[in-house]
Amino acid sequence: MTQFSSEIDPPARLLMGPGPVNAHPRVLRAMSAQLLGQFDPEFTSYMNETMALYRAVFQTENRWTFLIDATARGAIEAALISTLVPGDRIVVGSIGRFGGLLAEIAERCGAELHLLTAPWGEVLSPEAIEDAIAAVKPRLFACVHGDTSTTMAQPIEGIAAICRKYGALSYVDATATLGGMDVPVDRWGVDIVTSGLQKCLGGPSGSAPITISDQAAAWIASRRHIEQGLMLGSGGGTNARIGSNYFDLAMIMDYWSEKRLNHHTESTTLLYAARECARLMLEETLPARFRRHDLASAAVVAGTTAMGLIPYGDLRHKMSNVTGIVIPPGIDGERVRAKMREDFSIEIGSSFGPLQGKIWRIGAMGWNATKPNVLATLVALETVLRREGFAAPAGAAADAVLAAYA
Amino acid sequence: MTQFSSEIDPPARLLMGPGPVNAHPRVLRAMSAQLLGQFDPEFTSYMNETMALYRAVFQTENRWTFLIDATARGAIEAALISTLVPGDRIVVGSIGRFGGLLAEIAERCGAELHLLTAPWGEVLSPEAIEDAIAAVKPRLFACVHGDTSTTMAQPIEGIAAICRKYGALSYVDATATLGGMDVPVDRWGVDIVTSGLQKCLGGPSGSAPITISDQAAAWIASRRHIEQGLMLGSGGGTNARIGSNYFDLAMIMDYWSEKRLNHHTESTTLLYAARECARLMLEETLPARFRRHDLASAAVVAGTTAMGLIPYGDLRHKMSNVTGIVIPPGIDGERVRAKMREDFSIEIGSSFGPLQGKIWRIGAMGWNATKPNVLATLVALETVLRREGFAAPAGAAADAVLAAYA
Repeated sequence: MTQFSSEIDPPARLLMGPGPVNAHPRVLRAMSAQLLGQFDPEFTSYMNETMALYRAVFQTENRWTFLIDATARGAIEAALISTLVPGDRIVVGSIGRFGGLLAEIAERCGAELHLLTAPWGEVLSPEAIEDAIAAVKPRLFACVHGDTSTTMAQPIEGIAAICRKYGALSYVDATATLGGMDVPVDRWGVDIVTSGLQKCLGGPSGSAPITISDQAAAWIASRRHIEQGLMLGSGGGTNARIGSNYFDLAMIMDYWSEKRLNHHTESTTLLYAARECARLMLEETLPARFRRHDLASAAVVAGTTAMGLIPYGDLRHKMSNVTGIVIPPGIDGERVRAKMREDFSIEIGSSFGPLQGKIWRIGAMGWNATKPNVLATLVALETVLRREGFAAPAGAAADAVLAAYA
Repeated sequence: MTQFSSEIDPPARLLMGPGPVNAHPRVLRAMSAQLLGQFDPEFTSYMNETMALYRAVFQTENRWTFLIDATARGAIEAALISTLVPGDRIVVGSIGRFGGLLAEIAERCGAELHLLTAPWGEVLSPEAIEDAIAAVKPRLFACVHGDTSTTMAQPIEGIAAICRKYGALSYVDATATLGGMDVPVDRWGVDIVTSGLQKCLGGPSGSAPITISDQAAAWIASRRHIEQGLMLGSGGGTNARIGSNYFDLAMIMDYWSEKRLNHHTESTTLLYAARECARLMLEETLPARFRRHDLASAAVVAGTTAMGLIPYGDLRHKMSNVTGIVIPPGIDGERVRAKMREDFSIEIGSSFGPLQGKIWRIGAMGWNATKPNVLATLVALETVLRREGFAAPAGAAADAVLAAYA
């Protein structure tokens, strides 16, 4: 049946870019389990288990910890549109392209945007954040934890306290860090945190974990609105209706609550995947998992530096799971990436906007954050660079990686 | 590691409700394939193949035929929010709960809603639709093809011509029918049609096929807006920006085009699933597939009627893949469903709103639309009803199903 294309058979690739990365085989196997009806007691048990597992992943007691059936970007939109009423003020603290995305989505929500930006490669100081929040008195402060466009991680400690001082809610996009870097939601005290599966959690994109504080959930519930035709005697909240049905967190919380009010049809398969991602992380233990990512990060930095390459940005704030590497003068970055893929079947990333053509991004995250994978990637990069005319000392990368792991 | 719950192991259930239904084993296997990077040439080839496969599934030449990374409801929202500018008029033709959903989403888009409703169990006449469109002159007419809440299918022939006469775009939600009933998009001439995988296509929910006419795509592209920070020299369209980033079809078309502009991270696994769903359908051939659903439908009606039950609604317009059954007086519908599940591990559906507690819904769709499954379901229903005190003639259902298939 060649006219219908052939059976799915992706080439074996080692995905060492900024994500998606290779999914853990247990996650892939979980996704081949048969479906269940969405209100089957066995399935709603899986939903409840998944909530409990993600409370542990997010290090939170938040009751409202569940999945959004969309990629990480969908969960960002759900958080912002369910929180912001058109005309509300928001302060977005941006350290890169994904901070820009938060700003863009906030504008589409009809919010009055106050954008606070750090130069790419740097992070924002708590003082700058407090000054902005004090001046604007926003409904919401939003920022990205790890912005993969620059590979920088914004320190989050203390931000929620600033927000509370000025009556603002707080939102953190932890898409690229949850599962690899410490995301202690309750210790941070942040109101809403969202993520995705395809980075440090080692799963496919398409399902996005979210956690919501009681305070934020109460505000969102006050904007609750039940679809006509769903049940007799539908009731509504007192505040402005949320501008999206699909991303209406009030309705999605009703669906994930004991009420089980019909909303979307939960993606059974991606819930199986999300559940397995969390199980893998908790079995490994959080400290061991963060240490594994830290070690891989140190090895990537050591190996590339030994090759004569320069890691990008303020290294005190580098994400542990992604490393930016400055593309040396005279080297065609895209050609190097193509050789890596064609000759070694290894994927590394490029970047966006002002960093397009300026840096590569090497990710070592989730299941992929291991010594063999870091070694394979840097040895391949050294080989390709040498043949492209960049004088990397032969063997230096491998020695440095092995030393970092020793 | 019992504290982290056990390995995924759903019970064997035959899902004969209104969806989700059991996924075809080939679809489940496709989802265990390893991930690829979203801009890997091998993956973008799979994206292009998937577009071609869904053109055949939708029976269209539409260039813009692709997937939305959300459940079917997300694709509805994408179609409406990308088309409707706040203040635009829309006529929604509603025959049930999911028509109500279109109306609800249109209101959240800021549209001026004109709702045309048929009594539950009936469909709308072309005359009523033309009168409403002529009076309102909307930007968009929207309706549901098969509304599973009532099990009725709205005839679509002729509607697009009416829309063109009055300068309106047309949208049809074919979530519950694509893959089971004939959805000839080009013959219909409808501008936008969306669906989901978890009904007649026999896959998981979470990915939603969409097809868009050139005319609708041109309107949507005029609302195009590129994210700041994504590329230098970003440009924008001339008309009002779309109110959602995630569901901005102009951006999603850029992502699925040769431009490959970064938007969300395509859900690799669900694309593999969607691709396999389409391959299965095209291998079977569309006429054979529709015939298989028609036959299962006839068998369900024959079997339940022989049992002394009454099929719900105007049977001239019944969807072929779902059948409503009036719950007999004195019978507790939820108790029957629980017994079906507990004793036979078979799921059938209840319904919503005015039909809650009034009808069951039996689906026979996708991989599940077979003689053995219809037989198993009706024999189980007969047994449960007999023990609940409903005098179904023993053996009548099985004989009627076998006769329908003979």
